[in-house]
Amino acid sequence: MTSELVGPVEVVGAGLLGTSIGLACRRAGIDVILTDPSSENLRTASGLGAGRPRTDADQPQLVVVAVPPDHLGAEIARALDRTDAVVTDVGSVKTGPLAAVTALPGVERYVGGHPMAGSERSGPLAGSAALFDGRPWAITPHVLSTPAAVALVEELVRLCGAVPVRLAPEEHDRAVARTSHVPHLLASLVAARLVDAPEQHLALSGQGVRDVTRVAAGDPALYGQIVTANSEAVLDLLGEVRTQLDTLIAAVAGADRSGLEAVLRQGVAGTQAIPGKHGGPARPMRSVFVSVPDHPGELARLFADAGASEVNIEDIHIDHDPGRPVGLVELVVDETRAEHLLASLESRAWVTHR
Amino acid sequence: MTSELVGPVEVVGAGLLGTSIGLACRRAGIDVILTDPSSENLRTASGLGAGRPRTDADQPQLVVVAVPPDHLGAEIARALDRTDAVVTDVGSVKTGPLAAVTALPGVERYVGGHPMAGSERSGPLAGSAALFDGRPWAITPHVLSTPAAVALVEELVRLCGAVPVRLAPEEHDRAVARTSHVPHLLASLVAARLVDAPEQHLALSGQGVRDVTRVAAGDPALYGQIVTANSEAVLDLLGEVRTQLDTLIAAVAGADRSGLEAVLRQGVAGTQAIPGKHGGPARPMRSVFVSVPDHPGELARLFADAGASEVNIEDIHIDHDPGRPVGLVELVVDETRAEHLLASLESRAWVTHR
Repeated sequence: MTSELVGPVEVVGAGLLGTSIGLACRRAGIDVILTDPSSENLRTASGLGAGRPRTDADQPQLVVVAVPPDHLGAEIARALDRTDAVVTDVGSVKTGPLAAVTALPGVERYVGGHPMAGSERSGPLAGSAALFDGRPWAITPHVLSTPAAVALVEELVRLCGAVPVRLAPEEHDRAVARTSHVPHLLASLVAARLVDAPEQHLALSGQGVRDVTRVAAGDPALYGQIVTANSEAVLDLLGEVRTQLDTLIAAVAGADRSGLEAVLRQGVAGTQAIPGKHGGPARPMRSVFVSVPDHPGELARLFADAGASEVNIEDIHIDHDPGRPVGLVELVVDETRAEHLLASLESRAWVTHR
Repeated sequence: MTSELVGPVEVVGAGLLGTSIGLACRRAGIDVILTDPSSENLRTASGLGAGRPRTDADQPQLVVVAVPPDHLGAEIARALDRTDAVVTDVGSVKTGPLAAVTALPGVERYVGGHPMAGSERSGPLAGSAALFDGRPWAITPHVLSTPAAVALVEELVRLCGAVPVRLAPEEHDRAVARTSHVPHLLASLVAARLVDAPEQHLALSGQGVRDVTRVAAGDPALYGQIVTANSEAVLDLLGEVRTQLDTLIAAVAGADRSGLEAVLRQGVAGTQAIPGKHGGPARPMRSVFVSVPDHPGELARLFADAGASEVNIEDIHIDHDPGRPVGLVELVVDETRAEHLLASLESRAWVTHR
């Protein structure tokens, strides 16, 4: 077994992730075999140039299983059984599929994976060779995985332009419970409180509640599968949240201001624990606010003027408050560059707010 | 009493909101009197042109109380006592201050108010006459408020460029508990779970957890005051959240997929209940994803090209995943315009993702 990825790569499941991996491999000149129970998905993905249908003679070097969480274990087992290839997958949860195959012959050829790629989109048409550019991609070897298999999967990750992050499967599942599954579930609980609220109450919705609830718009069937597959780690954290919620309720009910502030301060500390852009420590950032008329061309003019100031914009938020004909655009920039950007925009007649 | 706002307007508290109201009134040519226990705030706000110091001879037509939540009741009472003016305030919670003054002579001259303006910034230097442009501004008359007093406060709101939303004080407090205070508290609980998480776990943080926790970065002392002042409405909702959390925990623990999906579907419905931009019904939107190199000028080039397509951009998100040298920019546009924007950007050599 060589750690050089030469192909063919077989991709099982021609959805968003499978198609994108196919496109990235084809871009590198590697032969890609595609399979999918939906002949329409298969036609679409092949049509996009993500690979070709399987033939009986095919002997893949690497099989990438890119199917919904419920089917991961069975498809990984099938791939180990019918090929001699290294097998990886792109599922959001890693211990369950591993448990399903851990006693099978060939399990040393299996190495789990999980690219941190967006989930609002789905289907092969949303695929792109650039989907993984610079993203973290968890690689989760188990105790029996051979070093050569791990190295080959890491080759795939790099070929897709992603940044490999090695974690044990249990570590991975605890990590995504914390950074993805529990935030999603709590966002759902907040959003659920808005159902049946009087229209006039909802008229007071600002950007805050929109941000908090955004992820709760995700597909319930998919997230139901993901959360169920990671129930142990999710339950541990939900238990912690429940304890903290009781503490919070007691503090509010007892008008215990210092207890309440302690909960809020923990929240502030948590927001500061999230790593900065590009994985480095979070640099001090400052927000610059600009009033922008809400019609085509104005944003372009703003960014042209911001570009002329040569200040790199790290993040943007557009304020969405109902009834607002003038948008308030928040530009997040390095703290040391904020005054320069403000002066530059003001000299070009923009209305800024410090 | 006339409902025509001619001034003088006295603003008590020269922070972000007070200074901005002063600037908006001065822009309309109205005489503004400023008071603040901090002589530095007062000097700064006057220097910005937000108003002038009080003299013994001043007889304001309208007093705007813009002090922290803990001091609202006392300052509204003082204003009713020492002037014959209509009195309003800009506090985030409305029933508490009303209860503090409801038995006082002159309470018929008091009408509560609450502009939905950002809270990440503070202090007079952040003030701007444009801060309230097009924003909702709750006006909360109580049963004794005179129609003339209500009309005068509505005059102020319109003069500041905001959109008046009339609600009873109790209605207002229930509304902001739902759309602001409880989302903030739950975001704090999610963020608190990130404290002390291993660095490698946090390396898997995506845009989702950043969005959910963003508001939790707010000042604990200020939010402690706000939540305490609105404890009744907040506790009602936190009780509902606790019940739902127990339901959720039971569903996950019992591998009850349909119960779990029911919770997630409620969340989806909640995100759809939030009104669309400009208060209208939410129009169908679609996201267009574009790969953008992470250096100055590239965003400007993107928005110039998007502007040339004459498609109005309703929202923007920049993907922040660690280790990503190429940013993924999400442009949210009217569904019917998405294909046109994609074609236009692709013709200008942008890498897009459908």
